[in-house]
Amino acid sequence: MIYQDISGLFQTGKEHVGLHKIDLERSILQVSRVSEKLRENIVQNAYPFLTSVQETEDIKRLLPVLKRFSENLETIIVLGTGGSSLGGQTVTALRDGGVGFHFSKPSLYFLENIDPFTLNLLINHVDLEKTGLLVISKSGTTSETLAQVLTCEKLWAQKNLSPFFIKNTLVVTEAKSSPLRRFAQYLGILCLDHDPKVGGRFSVFSLVGLIPLMCANLDPLKLRRGGYQVLEKFLTKSITESTPALGAAALYALMMERGITQTVLMPYVDRLAPFGLWFRQLWAESLGKDGIGQTPIRAMGTVDQHSQLQLYLDGPKDKVFTLLGLEGKTAFEDKALLSSKDPELDYLDEMSLGSLLKAEEHATFQSLLQKGCPVRRLSFNRLDEEVLGELFMHFMLETLLMGTLLKIDPLTQPAVEEIKRLTKVYLTEAKKVK
Amino acid sequence: MIYQDISGLFQTGKEHVGLHKIDLERSILQVSRVSEKLRENIVQNAYPFLTSVQETEDIKRLLPVLKRFSENLETIIVLGTGGSSLGGQTVTALRDGGVGFHFSKPSLYFLENIDPFTLNLLINHVDLEKTGLLVISKSGTTSETLAQVLTCEKLWAQKNLSPFFIKNTLVVTEAKSSPLRRFAQYLGILCLDHDPKVGGRFSVFSLVGLIPLMCANLDPLKLRRGGYQVLEKFLTKSITESTPALGAAALYALMMERGITQTVLMPYVDRLAPFGLWFRQLWAESLGKDGIGQTPIRAMGTVDQHSQLQLYLDGPKDKVFTLLGLEGKTAFEDKALLSSKDPELDYLDEMSLGSLLKAEEHATFQSLLQKGCPVRRLSFNRLDEEVLGELFMHFMLETLLMGTLLKIDPLTQPAVEEIKRLTKVYLTEAKKVK
Repeated sequence: MIYQDISGLFQTGKEHVGLHKIDLERSILQVSRVSEKLRENIVQNAYPFLTSVQETEDIKRLLPVLKRFSENLETIIVLGTGGSSLGGQTVTALRDGGVGFHFSKPSLYFLENIDPFTLNLLINHVDLEKTGLLVISKSGTTSETLAQVLTCEKLWAQKNLSPFFIKNTLVVTEAKSSPLRRFAQYLGILCLDHDPKVGGRFSVFSLVGLIPLMCANLDPLKLRRGGYQVLEKFLTKSITESTPALGAAALYALMMERGITQTVLMPYVDRLAPFGLWFRQLWAESLGKDGIGQTPIRAMGTVDQHSQLQLYLDGPKDKVFTLLGLEGKTAFEDKALLSSKDPELDYLDEMSLGSLLKAEEHATFQSLLQKGCPVRRLSFNRLDEEVLGELFMHFMLETLLMGTLLKIDPLTQPAVEEIKRLTKVYLTEAKKVK
Repeated sequence: MIYQDISGLFQTGKEHVGLHKIDLERSILQVSRVSEKLRENIVQNAYPFLTSVQETEDIKRLLPVLKRFSENLETIIVLGTGGSSLGGQTVTALRDGGVGFHFSKPSLYFLENIDPFTLNLLINHVDLEKTGLLVISKSGTTSETLAQVLTCEKLWAQKNLSPFFIKNTLVVTEAKSSPLRRFAQYLGILCLDHDPKVGGRFSVFSLVGLIPLMCANLDPLKLRRGGYQVLEKFLTKSITESTPALGAAALYALMMERGITQTVLMPYVDRLAPFGLWFRQLWAESLGKDGIGQTPIRAMGTVDQHSQLQLYLDGPKDKVFTLLGLEGKTAFEDKALLSSKDPELDYLDEMSLGSLLKAEEHATFQSLLQKGCPVRRLSFNRLDEEVLGELFMHFMLETLLMGTLLKIDPLTQPAVEEIKRLTKVYLTEAKKVK
């Protein structure tokens, strides 16, 4: 279970830019008001990306499909970008560590970009006969994903491996006619339906997150169970007993009354490194609208203590911090205790890497507090699918609540649609010049 | 050669928060003034991390050492954090692609953190007899790096591989007594001297960047040559002819007169993904002091168009953007042209991944401009060691100039030192409780 400590968000001295008690109380009232409507909508299934955590049937249906798809594969390349990719990256980090290791089979590579150098590097180093492609695009019109899959089709064909391309590809897209859907149908590639009511950045509990998770032999039911626990508490308990409701109240007050324009998420667990990227999209795309918005920053403890903390502590007081960390035995379970014969390293003797990591998190928390920066902590006593599910649900609800408080529709992304249109215009113009 | 286009930093309409011509002119005068002193200091060798780009002898001496160190290794694990790691990550991305691939031999893994889960994952998947450790800590007192190396020593010993640990480890640290130096000397591990006048985040042209680069079979002389070209121009040409001097003038004016608090670096080349992280440390740690500072943000084109661009375009106008991209033939050199029989994809037909990438960069540039966001472009017609050297020098000089303009010493990081002290206090307290 995740535990939230917001004590560090309150003003503790003249320099501290955090909350007064009264700010939070006022904000809690506002959250109460907007929560009523949100709860009602959730119960009436207006947000299937949340309520899907109660389902199990879809997972049962998925099992045989994935067994057939992945059982002979050494490598799976996920083609997709943004919300089609970040959820999958985040869940598979539980197995792979979150720092770019590809040691387990099948290896999962998330090819988000269209840089030809990168694609060639990857294609030239995998065995194409044992490589699967998982192609994800909600609309079926995402240029980058289509360009990736068209390029791959060509590369496979050049090596006379088209039958493997067709057999080893799995497409996830909406059940309507689209370039991706037509492409898959034309070639006879298996297509699964992307729920049209589940937007990319909110899709981690759907097929989009579950397929990579299941390909990595992790447990989808546990992930959903974690999500359900946080959702259920929000639906049935008071605002102060629900971590995302209380969190949203505090963050909203900090933003509106203390001019906090940036929110830093800083996990002290490598496996949560992609979670920071997932959160960054969720917060930025959902809340950055109409001149409003708060810039999400993904930091990593301890790494960014040596890269960003100088600015965080001593620069402008425009940030709120959320530290994520393991607590209790699991955090220290590494048995290799440190030892040196060096008197200057006495402080490390008999400690482990895990305990040093905790001490650094503690030191960062205290330093932020002392320097007057608002900081909260989310902690958990293990990190598995269930806790990850809780974290996903926590931040999705917090984002929805913030959006409602800010009077922004958190489910759209109008400005990005314009870029997509412009890209097509430039490409068409470029072709005319040719 | 890198080419800078600052036209998008100027106000083009009522909504645009960019510069007036007069702002830039005023700022250029200020840069002129501070540049005189800086140039003088550089010529008098007060900044060896810049002037080292003129040296070649140290590289000649390094060659045989590295041949002996790396020739039988399949894997090299770099132990170090912040400035001891990011430069190496950035240069080796030229070979490895910048997105976490480890296909070439020797594979280079940069283990920045002390998460025991990650370390165990890595150690359990490499052949320790063929694994080298490159340990980098300027002071020789960095807790994380010491904890890493002590843990590794123990793990190697548990497998009766201590002789390999000793033979395959190379330490880079200052030539003074320190825990790391004493550790190496006690075991008889080879130590190379870290120049005491070269701070971590400015160390990429020194051993710290060169060793990983050379282990990846890249050319150190070309890297330095690129750096030299940008340095020489700054020393001998006018402010407007030097990309970092003109850049600093524009960014300073935007910060002081337009309230721009965040600077987004967005490469449209995967190989520059770690460059964004390197820049992020350089800018944050150098300029985040005394309540001043600007938050650096590392974005990736096209990936973050699907994650952050909604906020950038439609959120608060508190950001300046720098796009980095390939120009000319190299950008489009992939031969696999796209083709589909789908009328909705006519715009992609006969295009390549590279041309789509360029079109997206173009669309992003124009969209930012239209939405009133200041944006500049740095472009180059190839990406190799030389151009990377130019980029390093550009941003180091720009940072030094910004620091001088802001009356901040860009070479220190006082707040981080406090965290290091606190961590030791907590560890010592934790031990007492035990």
